Amino acid sequence: MASIAEELAEKQQEISVGEFFERNKHILGFDSLTKSLVTAVKEGVDNSLDACEEAEILPEIKVKIEEVNDREYKISVEDNGPGIVKRKVPEVFGKLLYGSRFHEISQSRGQQGIGVSAVVMYGQLTTGKATLVRSKVKEKDYANEMKITLDTKNNEPEVLDEEVVIWEGKDHGMRFETTIKGLLRRGRHSVFEYLKNTAIVNPHARIEYVRNGNTTVFKRATDQLPEKTKAVQPHLKGIELGTLAKMAKNSKRRTLKSFLKHEFSRISYSKAEEICEYAGIDKKTNPGELEVEDCKDILKAAEKVKLMAPKTDCLSPIKGMLIKKGLKNVLKGKHPDYYAPPTTRDPEVFSGNPFQVEVGLVYGGDLPKDGPINVLRFANRVPLMYKKGGCAVTSAIKNIDWRIYGLDQRGGKGMPKGPAVVLVHVASTRVPFTSEAKEAIADIPEVIDEIEKGLRECARSLRTHLNREKKRKKVKKKFTVVNDILPMIAEKSAQIVGKETPELSKSMTKIMGVVYVDKNYEWDNGVCKIDIEIMNYTPKEKDMNLFFEKPYPETELLSSNEEPAHQGDHLEWKLESLKPSEKRKISIEFDGGLEKDDLDGTDVYIEGITETKLIGAEPLPDDWDIELAEIKEGQ
Amino acid sequence: MASIAEELAEKQQEISVGEFFERNKHILGFDSLTKSLVTAVKEGVDNSLDACEEAEILPEIKVKIEEVNDREYKISVEDNGPGIVKRKVPEVFGKLLYGSRFHEISQSRGQQGIGVSAVVMYGQLTTGKATLVRSKVKEKDYANEMKITLDTKNNEPEVLDEEVVIWEGKDHGMRFETTIKGLLRRGRHSVFEYLKNTAIVNPHARIEYVRNGNTTVFKRATDQLPEKTKAVQPHLKGIELGTLAKMAKNSKRRTLKSFLKHEFSRISYSKAEEICEYAGIDKKTNPGELEVEDCKDILKAAEKVKLMAPKTDCLSPIKGMLIKKGLKNVLKGKHPDYYAPPTTRDPEVFSGNPFQVEVGLVYGGDLPKDGPINVLRFANRVPLMYKKGGCAVTSAIKNIDWRIYGLDQRGGKGMPKGPAVVLVHVASTRVPFTSEAKEAIADIPEVIDEIEKGLRECARSLRTHLNREKKRKKVKKKFTVVNDILPMIAEKSAQIVGKETPELSKSMTKIMGVVYVDKNYEWDNGVCKIDIEIMNYTPKEKDMNLFFEKPYPETELLSSNEEPAHQGDHLEWKLESLKPSEKRKISIEFDGGLEKDDLDGTDVYIEGITETKLIGAEPLPDDWDIELAEIKEGQ
Repeated sequence: MASIAEELAEKQQEISVGEFFERNKHILGFDSLTKSLVTAVKEGVDNSLDACEEAEILPEIKVKIEEVNDREYKISVEDNGPGIVKRKVPEVFGKLLYGSRFHEISQSRGQQGIGVSAVVMYGQLTTGKATLVRSKVKEKDYANEMKITLDTKNNEPEVLDEEVVIWEGKDHGMRFETTIKGLLRRGRHSVFEYLKNTAIVNPHARIEYVRNGNTTVFKRATDQLPEKTKAVQPHLKGIELGTLAKMAKNSKRRTLKSFLKHEFSRISYSKAEEICEYAGIDKKTNPGELEVEDCKDILKAAEKVKLMAPKTDCLSPIKGMLIKKGLKNVLKGKHPDYYAPPTTRDPEVFSGNPFQVEVGLVYGGDLPKDGPINVLRFANRVPLMYKKGGCAVTSAIKNIDWRIYGLDQRGGKGMPKGPAVVLVHVASTRVPFTSEAKEAIADIPEVIDEIEKGLRECARSLRTHLNREKKRKKVKKKFTVVNDILPMIAEKSAQIVGKETPELSKSMTKIMGVVYVDKNYEWDNGVCKIDIEIMNYTPKEKDMNLFFEKPYPETELLSSNEEPAHQGDHLEWKLESLKPSEKRKISIEFDGGLEKDDLDGTDVYIEGITETKLIGAEPLPDDWDIELAEIKEGQ
Repeated sequence: MASIAEELAEKQQEISVGEFFERNKHILGFDSLTKSLVTAVKEGVDNSLDACEEAEILPEIKVKIEEVNDREYKISVEDNGPGIVKRKVPEVFGKLLYGSRFHEISQSRGQQGIGVSAVVMYGQLTTGKATLVRSKVKEKDYANEMKITLDTKNNEPEVLDEEVVIWEGKDHGMRFETTIKGLLRRGRHSVFEYLKNTAIVNPHARIEYVRNGNTTVFKRATDQLPEKTKAVQPHLKGIELGTLAKMAKNSKRRTLKSFLKHEFSRISYSKAEEICEYAGIDKKTNPGELEVEDCKDILKAAEKVKLMAPKTDCLSPIKGMLIKKGLKNVLKGKHPDYYAPPTTRDPEVFSGNPFQVEVGLVYGGDLPKDGPINVLRFANRVPLMYKKGGCAVTSAIKNIDWRIYGLDQRGGKGMPKGPAVVLVHVASTRVPFTSEAKEAIADIPEVIDEIEKGLRECARSLRTHLNREKKRKKVKKKFTVVNDILPMIAEKSAQIVGKETPELSKSMTKIMGVVYVDKNYEWDNGVCKIDIEIMNYTPKEKDMNLFFEKPYPETELLSSNEEPAHQGDHLEWKLESLKPSEKRKISIEFDGGLEKDDLDGTDVYIEGITETKLIGAEPLPDDWDIELAEIKEGQ
């Protein structure tokens, strides 16, 4: 027997991290040829977007995929980010578990320091090729280029080749090129789809995609960078006992009170004292001397003491108007009837981690009417492409009876059907992914609950819209009848009685009681001329604001018969003292860079008129006011 | 800008493996309180079973769970394995990625060297408690006991306490005790269910489960240890290019020919030469000098040259009769009508990895008739408890139109309904799990295909059984009629014509044409008396073998009116020259350790009679012959 225990002992040995992940590449998202391509691009783009945002640069990303052999593709990702300093390049690309964000509590795409080095590893494993990395930081005149592989046995980078190059036209940025085994497919799980969806939730990014020579550009829909997220300290509620014990042991603070105050978020000195008291531990205790039982008491005390919820300035939601812009930008070719005002919920907390849910909903028009609705899932501005079935987003959608909001759904359960696209974005300092491949959000009750609430908000808007549409159809019919027939009757009657035709506008306003907006788009050699006519058919004088949403920030206003009161992502006109029966017309021209798909008639909003009295334009959604106010303030 | 790249560089740092897995404990199966308990027990039991089998010891495993606090459980797993030598205990329990099977290609439960150290880590993280490990190897008189924690920052074990103890009544073995946060639930995802299912596919193990003081024992259903699996070399087909390149680089062989011959399975010298020729590389090339392009050519050549499929003696299927025994052992309280002869498919290969599929199917009786069939999934003798929806087993079941085999299924797609339990076991040197938590088998086409084939085999048996049952009912009716009425008619007719009553057995045999088996079970003070009567109602003399399947290997035969020709897991009688109309009776008595549930009437088999002519017993399944032959040979 002894020999067996000894024999087994001889075989026991350390397993290298590199070899572990090489063997288990499927848990990093390299489990099929199609998916491997998407994963490789995704890891590169995630890093580029993170770096650009950290450096407050509007991202310009180029992705290129080229088939070089059967099931072998050369892929490259290039950005205009800050670049990586030379000495760090090998480790960032050639060492697993190496990164800057692991120990930080903040919202970012990458966190574990595995992503892009896993791509390098997968490339060398499947094609034997090294990865070529080029990086330029601003203050150097040249870029560094090196060929990197990963020594999986020791999890260390190997630099095969190194040179200095001039990077024409590039002030700073990063580019890597690698050759991997893969399969380029079209459809729901394609690289194209991933980039398209990335563009939706990153409207501040310009993404160029070259696929075997064919270029697609996802233009920037805004020049506004997302607010920079801040790293936060952990929150005492929801922290694991072992983590607390370790923090206490490693703390350099001299007292428990000061430890609680300085190493946790939302704890003031007085709160810290309160916690010590509840826990029955002297506040002057050296944190290094705390026993596990003490830590347990501290956690129990934290449950009893009222602590403020974690700070949420570590989160960066996309926010309403940009969600709409993002959706519009990629829905090209499909013109929905209705964009529900996107919902950005207030931040919430699960196990000490702040998170925030956003939902967008698009309906009708020429979206496909048959089959289930289209669901776009996102976490920290990254599209989730796989494992839809096991995702909290899907669970939340299935929990809702969509029939009451106007969608088809068998038995009021499961995936609803109809011409709708639903977008759900979960932002968090720690998105609870079901696996390291980050493909689905785990079914955390608090998260599902928030998603459900966000969905219901959008769904209610949809219901209101559908009801309003019914009403509007009626009113429009009435309007047409009144507008066409009343003058004829008046004229005829006047002829008969031999009097002058009476002024009808007053009667019209009495009958109609609406503000009517008429839009006309004309294209001339790529220049778009738009006439917007606003008619006040109510019995009262009205003040209102007219908003026109520009398709792209760079879209130039060539002319306008009235100077807009504000110009930015939106144009705004103040229409003051519009008298009953008065008409006003805004005529504008945009420059030639636009395509027909860029403008779809859902770009006009009116502020100041009750939605039931408004025909031909959308009311300005409530929560947009704030954003506009912010924009205005910022100028 | 420079400052930003520099600033980012400052934050770049190595991430410790320990901290990575601590943060990502959900990918190791610790993603909910209920699941954490199952995972902790599972990791312990997997290790114990692996160690026992490696040392060729019949496993005796004790699992104990005790609630010590709200949502806090003390769990322990004890085995009679070879034990772990003292110097290796800390690393086995206190270091992630440390193990004996990672670099081996063989069928085993654990492989990555993460399992049980993850339990230690999870325990200290959630309750702050260290894990107590006791180990005794045979040649020492004492056991070693130590308290272990895992220093996640450095991924190194810390031994807090260490002593020598006398382990009463234990020659060799291992035990660990840890306290973790969890939630003990009943139902489909419980520890009980996991252990029950483990018992099914490990019929050679005795498993005792003490849950808050209540003991359940899953008795051993066989004394046969599974065949010891062998480690094999990699197969050239399906190996990754990068792996081949690395092997070549590290090889100590002096020529390519010898490298191919000695480091890969199924390559002879002549095959090696053939490969070199196809690849256009000199067979005398030093493998260390091969370029990536050469390796590519070698892989291409491997596709062209006919190589034998990987060896399969590295696999250890459960095999038919033991699958039935395992199922029977745990189905207690439920008596199905029919056990389809379990199927053990021939080994197949995916990406160079051999695998083998086994399927069992149980039908009817008092299994629940409503709702979907019950599916038991296993991989390398480990039950898969979670992620049913994303598993290849489920995909394969849903692919089949079960209606043609006698089960309900809406539209011939999806999960079938009815009183059936289906067991699927996939054994492989590398089970393609979808995640490190090993919860589901990935949808590999080759694997799904094999599972489907196995399912169809069992399903066909079920269909045959159902048809036969219909026929049997008819024949039995006829038999009763003939048996009751014919003698009366004969007697009456004889009286009338004033002759002696004629001998009827010949006419009977002409009318019936079957062998009829009648069974009678009687219980007397726990002793079970069984009468089996075999009647030959065919016109020919018959030789046949009668098999009785003992419920447990230790069940003792107290008496038998005829000495069995063979005694083991089965009793066998040779019934020779049974003349037309002749009856023979076997009367046996078993010892008092049995409960009524242990014998359920499906334990009698007849060999030598066509199944259509056999009533009251099952024909001996074809593939059982081999096993019986092996048993006989072995004695």
